[in-house]
Amino acid sequence: MKITEIREKLKTVGVDAYVVSYGNRFLGQDVLPEEHKLKILCGFSGSAGIAVVTLNEAFLFVDGRYELQARAETKSKEITVIDEMPRFKSVCDLLQQKNISAVGYDAWCHSVAEMEYLKRRYREMQFIDIGDLLNINKFRAITAYNRDIRFTGMSSTDKITSVTEVLQDYQADAFLFTSADSVSWLLNLYARDLPYSPIVRAYALVSKQGEVELFADDLQGAMKGKNWEQFATVLAQMENTCIMFDAHSTPEKIKMLIGDKVKLIKTKDICALFKAEKNPAELQGMINCHIRDGVALVKLLSWLDKHWHGLKEFDVVKKLHEIRTAQENFFSESFATIAGSGPNGAIVHYQPDAEHNSSLQENTLLLLDSGGQYFDGTTDVTRTIAIGQPTTEMISDFTNVLKAHIALARMRFPQNTSGIKLDVIARSVLWQTGQDYKHGTGHGVACFGNVHEGPISISAGGSDYGFKTNMITSNEPGLYKEGKYGIRIENLQYTVQSETADGFLEFRYLTKVPIDKKLIDKYLLTEGELAWLNEYHKNVYNSLAPYLNEIEKVWLKDACSPL
Amino acid sequence: MKITEIREKLKTVGVDAYVVSYGNRFLGQDVLPEEHKLKILCGFSGSAGIAVVTLNEAFLFVDGRYELQARAETKSKEITVIDEMPRFKSVCDLLQQKNISAVGYDAWCHSVAEMEYLKRRYREMQFIDIGDLLNINKFRAITAYNRDIRFTGMSSTDKITSVTEVLQDYQADAFLFTSADSVSWLLNLYARDLPYSPIVRAYALVSKQGEVELFADDLQGAMKGKNWEQFATVLAQMENTCIMFDAHSTPEKIKMLIGDKVKLIKTKDICALFKAEKNPAELQGMINCHIRDGVALVKLLSWLDKHWHGLKEFDVVKKLHEIRTAQENFFSESFATIAGSGPNGAIVHYQPDAEHNSSLQENTLLLLDSGGQYFDGTTDVTRTIAIGQPTTEMISDFTNVLKAHIALARMRFPQNTSGIKLDVIARSVLWQTGQDYKHGTGHGVACFGNVHEGPISISAGGSDYGFKTNMITSNEPGLYKEGKYGIRIENLQYTVQSETADGFLEFRYLTKVPIDKKLIDKYLLTEGELAWLNEYHKNVYNSLAPYLNEIEKVWLKDACSPL
Repeated sequence: MKITEIREKLKTVGVDAYVVSYGNRFLGQDVLPEEHKLKILCGFSGSAGIAVVTLNEAFLFVDGRYELQARAETKSKEITVIDEMPRFKSVCDLLQQKNISAVGYDAWCHSVAEMEYLKRRYREMQFIDIGDLLNINKFRAITAYNRDIRFTGMSSTDKITSVTEVLQDYQADAFLFTSADSVSWLLNLYARDLPYSPIVRAYALVSKQGEVELFADDLQGAMKGKNWEQFATVLAQMENTCIMFDAHSTPEKIKMLIGDKVKLIKTKDICALFKAEKNPAELQGMINCHIRDGVALVKLLSWLDKHWHGLKEFDVVKKLHEIRTAQENFFSESFATIAGSGPNGAIVHYQPDAEHNSSLQENTLLLLDSGGQYFDGTTDVTRTIAIGQPTTEMISDFTNVLKAHIALARMRFPQNTSGIKLDVIARSVLWQTGQDYKHGTGHGVACFGNVHEGPISISAGGSDYGFKTNMITSNEPGLYKEGKYGIRIENLQYTVQSETADGFLEFRYLTKVPIDKKLIDKYLLTEGELAWLNEYHKNVYNSLAPYLNEIEKVWLKDACSPL
Repeated sequence: MKITEIREKLKTVGVDAYVVSYGNRFLGQDVLPEEHKLKILCGFSGSAGIAVVTLNEAFLFVDGRYELQARAETKSKEITVIDEMPRFKSVCDLLQQKNISAVGYDAWCHSVAEMEYLKRRYREMQFIDIGDLLNINKFRAITAYNRDIRFTGMSSTDKITSVTEVLQDYQADAFLFTSADSVSWLLNLYARDLPYSPIVRAYALVSKQGEVELFADDLQGAMKGKNWEQFATVLAQMENTCIMFDAHSTPEKIKMLIGDKVKLIKTKDICALFKAEKNPAELQGMINCHIRDGVALVKLLSWLDKHWHGLKEFDVVKKLHEIRTAQENFFSESFATIAGSGPNGAIVHYQPDAEHNSSLQENTLLLLDSGGQYFDGTTDVTRTIAIGQPTTEMISDFTNVLKAHIALARMRFPQNTSGIKLDVIARSVLWQTGQDYKHGTGHGVACFGNVHEGPISISAGGSDYGFKTNMITSNEPGLYKEGKYGIRIENLQYTVQSETADGFLEFRYLTKVPIDKKLIDKYLLTEGELAWLNEYHKNVYNSLAPYLNEIEKVWLKDACSPL
């Protein structure tokens, strides 16, 4: 449905505006290409955003990461791009300015918590659930399978017991899990439904007796489930029961369907909390798959070093895919590979394809951000590579980003420190040079699940959830010069107890891929930074060399020699 | 009234607990010694805390700064000290555990915002205003005077106009200012009522026509005011009007007295926002008074260097008072001087007096935290001094605190960055050594007003108000080893636009007092840190030398020679 068609519909329903969010009933995670409402609406293909169509205007809110991309993709004059946090709240502020008070939205796509907040804050506004005007909801067949316990480290029976213990504590009858990644983790149940995530898109209702009922499109295979129509019936028939749920991950529509006959207890998604602390099998899997992923990257980088002439960005993406696919336990990529050559590197989430595809030019930078899903874990790595000879400006900028990366990598901090505070550790290194980056420093990462996983993050406006041991995040400061180049250095890392300081945590890196020494000015590094870099490279070489051929080994030895 | 007497009263009134906060009707600021309810109740003399008396127990909540002091001062077994944020909320959590639901409190001593939050959060609790059982409220005579415009930089007429402009924007009839420091700033009206602050303890009601009505104990001198009984009558008689106020600084009692006949608009205390950004006259005054204060400190330190043998902590306090008093424009100290020798230095807010007074011992540290109110500004400085020869542990710890101090002093950061984020810049230097300090890194400072001034601060749990230019804060990381020593290095600093990075701010220091080089291991400093220190000392010498005698000048030259 185009913008003009939505306007016709608005007139029929009698509302003045319609909100189109990126999310579906899984609230922003796990969106299939054909469900991308913003792409259907206006061409924007990024994975965060919210649009609003009024009777005579239309606006798309995106954050800094997607600003350039959104402007490039939405060329029509029908919609105005606004660089502001893409939240329903931003939309309300705008509508308030325009004296628009009757707002249509889809209550499946906004959480209970969000709508409670908005209805409290914008009392004069009417929020009217008019459902999905873009008509993306179809019941797709999904075949589920069980993941082996040697990878999960814990049986679903044991995980369900952890949930029923919480239900007993709260004297509740059931927990409704509405985050698909929590459901997959809880039941060790996965699918091949999504392009970049192995999770199964389902809700789970877990009773205090440990019985599990699943709800999904059309779930087959290792476990069956009811479909969304049947789910609505189940909700409508509930009474004299007490259900726990996470108001931040549960669509408001569910509360509407349940009505007042059920006691609801709002809490955090307890599976999200459980799975953030990786168990020993998961951690070992993450360590193992990062060696294979490092091998894949080294095979690519050593090949690219010799063969970049005449290549286009998308050739690099395809080659990397080909190499990764050959690795043991490979499942899929963990997101669409970003390969931004020259100015494209400054578009934070630029993804080349048949249409957008520049040639690699001599004396430019190539920003390569990619990751894999392996049966034993998930990877996400960014390297920025000098194609030909870098300029002194590139070297100086890259070295500063490296200093920011190392500052966080070497950080020691008290248990329960939030990522909001750790974000500053990396970011302030760039502040000191009068620069900044418009994205978080790090995000939580699943072990075989979503490459962006809550509740932990390392970002300025992020979660205040505190760090514990065995939590995995990325460390990815960057620097972007519009029209010139982009730089980002990203490793995954996990938290361990400090061996020397009681009550303190430290990071250990998972990612093992050389950092381009052509881009480092060693005289800008402190002794400690240089020692970190040399130790890192030594470890990378020792970990990967056994899996490489002679040519690759020689290349890696040089790439990892001390500075 | 003792704890046992309070229990009798509780039985009469029919509540199960009574809350005693540190604050009075100015909510924690500006408490006179004879009004110190916690001291009356249990002997604790610190300036933050909250106690609760139940029918068979009593508890005192204090934060980390006051933990050791509270245990030392409340020796009786009647009250249990709890190291937890001293908030009414902490009390409620405890009472909830104990199944106590009817809580008595004094609605003059808790803000509208706090009580709204508590009543929403603890729905099952009854909060019953039973007034001040410790009977501290007396109507004291206060003589007010006007501060010269060459110091204030702005007439009260112009300041009032800024307020009436805001009232017009909001279509409100009046603003009720309930923070005494805001009232003093607005009217350029001061008094000699409080031991460490020149402000006048009054509320002000400013009408949209710019008329000002004052309320206080018994206000005389440059402006007259109504007393608190008359204030209650004024409130009760209000109707058909619209009043703006700050829910965080206004006692709940006021809202109770006003009732429902008045439209209330909650907003920030706009004077607090205005005065946080110092005007040129105020900034120049701060610079000037810091030179005189530096001269006073150098006179003390050079004397102490030769004469510490046989001295006690309180002798140092008295000597410093004697020297400061002789400085031009001196008004009072800005807080009770902290002089902690050896283990006393680890008690963050230790103040020696006739009773608590240790001798200075050879080979120990002396932590000296003091400040002055001058007619042109306010100072607050901490230096830690080696008495005799320091140990290598002392030197290593002091150098780390210095590195933390310099990290913040040299920081560059985007405009509107909050102090929550800047706190990490200093603190993380100590984290890296596996250590931390249980207080904020910095607080806002008035120009001739409260030495702790909102809304700006640099602390982990502090204000998220963003930094603008010309804002003054302290920079005071520390390190405390119980039973051994305390270290803190504190300068005041103000924000300026970066000259080289657009949109970024930097700090400039105000405090000019040498940092004890005997305690610095220069080989632990980076080149940049050492350059900062040497430049700082050079500036200190050049600024202060003209005002010193020859002996002091020689001492300072040595103290400020480059490392």
